Amino acid sequence: MADVTDKRVQRSKEAVLASTYASLSEGGIGGVSMDEVSRRSGVSKTTIYRHWPSRSALLLAACATMGSPPEVPDTGSIKGDLEALASNLAEQLRSAKWPAILPSIIDAAERDPELATLHAGLHAALMTPFLTVAERAQTRGDAPSGVTPAELTASVVGPLFYRRWFSKEPIDADFVLGAVARALKAL
Amino acid sequence: MADVTDKRVQRSKEAVLASTYASLSEGGIGGVSMDEVSRRSGVSKTTIYRHWPSRSALLLAACATMGSPPEVPDTGSIKGDLEALASNLAEQLRSAKWPAILPSIIDAAERDPELATLHAGLHAALMTPFLTVAERAQTRGDAPSGVTPAELTASVVGPLFYRRWFSKEPIDADFVLGAVARALKAL
Repeated sequence: MADVTDKRVQRSKEAVLASTYASLSEGGIGGVSMDEVSRRSGVSKTTIYRHWPSRSALLLAACATMGSPPEVPDTGSIKGDLEALASNLAEQLRSAKWPAILPSIIDAAERDPELATLHAGLHAALMTPFLTVAERAQTRGDAPSGVTPAELTASVVGPLFYRRWFSKEPIDADFVLGAVARALKAL
Repeated sequence: MADVTDKRVQRSKEAVLASTYASLSEGGIGGVSMDEVSRRSGVSKTTIYRHWPSRSALLLAACATMGSPPEVPDTGSIKGDLEALASNLAEQLRSAKWPAILPSIIDAAERDPELATLHAGLHAALMTPFLTVAERAQTRGDAPSGVTPAELTASVVGPLFYRRWFSKEPIDADFVLGAVARALKAL
């Protein structure tokens, strides 16, 4: 019996998270209310609040399922590693759902400390593989001189983000490989 | 008499734009309604609608006053020009009001074509000086080889935007000059 209950709870939690994510996709953070999620998922508000005590907690849980951060590649060179990571990120920027949602989180983070924490967590998860390969290259002596892992990450990722959310220019393979090559030039 | 009326009209238009901008600063685009702007500015909705037929038109006018794009510098070298522009942009990203507002416009632009047009216009105004100095350097033969003006702009501006809205790391002078130096290394 416990098993049946567990499965039912699991199913309703999944339905709530899927509905939250769908509302996020359609209207950004402003489009997510407990009422709307309850209506959409068919799960009562009482049950939703039992699992997630606040709207922020629910948003955090739904966003935790946003874009799975890639494995840390190990191609043997910082160039190969960054090319793999940047190509994967470019593919997500072109076709995943989360790039359409992230601006509403960034916007809310400008004014709401709880959502600023959510944003920082999402950003850290996305960037950790870049910092990891840059730090490994530094240890190995394969990193460009005079550049910290954080600066290297900004040089590779910055131009990609710039095109996705600001200039809206295409993020094609040439541009991605060029960004990596430019970032790796020692000063 | 015409003069007095003109001045009164001018003053009420300015009050409406200032109120719109204040609402934008406090709550992003979601915080701007014709009712709120009317209440705040003391100008009737009828009068507001006479000058700006829609909320989008009003937002566009208020945003047009956001951050004045810098003069195009002419230091004689692409390095000097980009350092001047990037330092000015960094200063604005650190202390102007518009960087706290822009994410709500980017967010709305993901779903609303009218606001996507507004976003594209704001972005173009901000980036034109960068493209202008890059194109001038190309004509003069002073530009790094194998890089288009658009790619050069993305390499300089991308890391700055990345720090302001994504990683939230400090945008200090070292970082800004480093971003310009890295962007200028020919491939």
